[in-house]
Amino acid sequence: MSLLVTGSIGIDTVETPHGKAADVLGGSAIYFSLSASLFAPVRLVGVVGADFPADRLDIFKGRPVDLAGVERRAGSKTFRWHGRYVGDMNAAQTLRTDLNVLGEAGPQIPPSFADSQVVFLANTHPALQREALARLKKAKLVVADTMNLWIETTREELLTTLGLVHGVVLNDGEARLLTGRTHLIDAGRRILALGPKFVVIKKGEHGAVLTTADDSCVLPAFPTTSVIDPTGAGDSFAGGMLGYLASTGSWGMADLRAAMARGTVMASFTIEGFSYTGLVKATRAAVDERLAALRRIMHFG
Amino acid sequence: MSLLVTGSIGIDTVETPHGKAADVLGGSAIYFSLSASLFAPVRLVGVVGADFPADRLDIFKGRPVDLAGVERRAGSKTFRWHGRYVGDMNAAQTLRTDLNVLGEAGPQIPPSFADSQVVFLANTHPALQREALARLKKAKLVVADTMNLWIETTREELLTTLGLVHGVVLNDGEARLLTGRTHLIDAGRRILALGPKFVVIKKGEHGAVLTTADDSCVLPAFPTTSVIDPTGAGDSFAGGMLGYLASTGSWGMADLRAAMARGTVMASFTIEGFSYTGLVKATRAAVDERLAALRRIMHFG
Repeated sequence: MSLLVTGSIGIDTVETPHGKAADVLGGSAIYFSLSASLFAPVRLVGVVGADFPADRLDIFKGRPVDLAGVERRAGSKTFRWHGRYVGDMNAAQTLRTDLNVLGEAGPQIPPSFADSQVVFLANTHPALQREALARLKKAKLVVADTMNLWIETTREELLTTLGLVHGVVLNDGEARLLTGRTHLIDAGRRILALGPKFVVIKKGEHGAVLTTADDSCVLPAFPTTSVIDPTGAGDSFAGGMLGYLASTGSWGMADLRAAMARGTVMASFTIEGFSYTGLVKATRAAVDERLAALRRIMHFG
Repeated sequence: MSLLVTGSIGIDTVETPHGKAADVLGGSAIYFSLSASLFAPVRLVGVVGADFPADRLDIFKGRPVDLAGVERRAGSKTFRWHGRYVGDMNAAQTLRTDLNVLGEAGPQIPPSFADSQVVFLANTHPALQREALARLKKAKLVVADTMNLWIETTREELLTTLGLVHGVVLNDGEARLLTGRTHLIDAGRRILALGPKFVVIKKGEHGAVLTTADDSCVLPAFPTTSVIDPTGAGDSFAGGMLGYLASTGSWGMADLRAAMARGTVMASFTIEGFSYTGLVKATRAAVDERLAALRRIMHFG
């Protein structure tokens, strides 16, 4: 099934205990697309400024990622983020954000993308998420991410958006902030009551929990010991999940479980290098190897 | 195989967002023994004061727990702890500790217990742990717990003890404090370098990680939504693990994995009620049901 992502494309500067990467390619749509494209073709929708070095997108060469939805906006500047991870690196400190073009109108969705069936609305203003969704009338599976900023400042808008999507992928802090519940399964159930059929709560190094009305799936993070830069792990997780679901074309509980595992593995590659350098090492064979390892470490008699 | 635990017996007062339980039975040896006795007979070693109401131990009636090692010391007072859990209840705030008899000499180990083969040294001063161990010359599997206090104040003593045991069970904060490593698999490997053959790092609501020289096992916590009082979860986990290992009489990787799962399930019962009220609901059938559920929630195709 056709898979579309709308999200950010940015230039990041990231500091972790392992070093610093300055002016590297980042953004949710980038990580999502690199990850998902291992499983299914991806249509990428995002907007950059006139300052964006076009060759940065060369990373997609040889991958089934359609860049027709990357809008280069004259007179605008590309989104920039500068963050730092310390200690256990479970949360980033934002040192500086220049929204730039992300503070303007949302990206155009090319007519050729209008028939997309699986859609990931990466984190952005919930009204922009709905705006994109309104143009995707063939969408059969819509999954959204969000963040603390929207939960705190545009709660009603966000609740409206959540009423329109099939799935939500968000992190533990966001789920707690959104629901006021500390217990994550409890929080997940509260989010289901807002409309979605499934909720995935990401817990960083502790893995992720999928909750549906009558079932759940809990997976630990893949235990890599080489954690260099967590940036993009969540979007890589979502990319692995939705890329897999687009490839199967169905999303029953067994599909969702398998998709969770692919997301888990893809996130593990991302955190092993700055920017996308870890993620691009994920081949199908390497992913299968980690899926087998993930099964093995959780197995008990 | 014969299983012995030496640990605390106390009177706890616990406050959680769900209420307060005053002057209830607690202590590591209590939780461990109740949990382990579902799998194997237990020899309990601990010391209480003259003030200890003897009928508190009636909870062990009908269970294969040998109380010959419970020493009632004249002129001494029973250990008391008053703690509070807030928010996500992952860590207790200690409001008051009266060490009382626990600040005196360690408990006597009855001669009839001297041939114990599987031994759990619950959290106490590492010199007392060694003292107990010195009297258990037939011990084949020795597992120790510890806490921040000993890591910070008696580090050298603790390192000596860790050099004598086969396994360590401790929580994530303790593992980080002991090793100075934030990444838990990394921390686990550092602990292996101190002597033990295996390390279990407990992560509260996020489950537990077992690390050996060449393998690992990662299990999520059993997803109960009824978290009433986390007190004793860690000792119930250790009880489930060692009770299972004592029942099989072997501790290869497959045994350790199976034991981790039993520990995980036993901890989930404990947190569902104040003091031991949740734990005592764990029947063999209920445990088997949760083991099956745990397999199911982690399964992916």
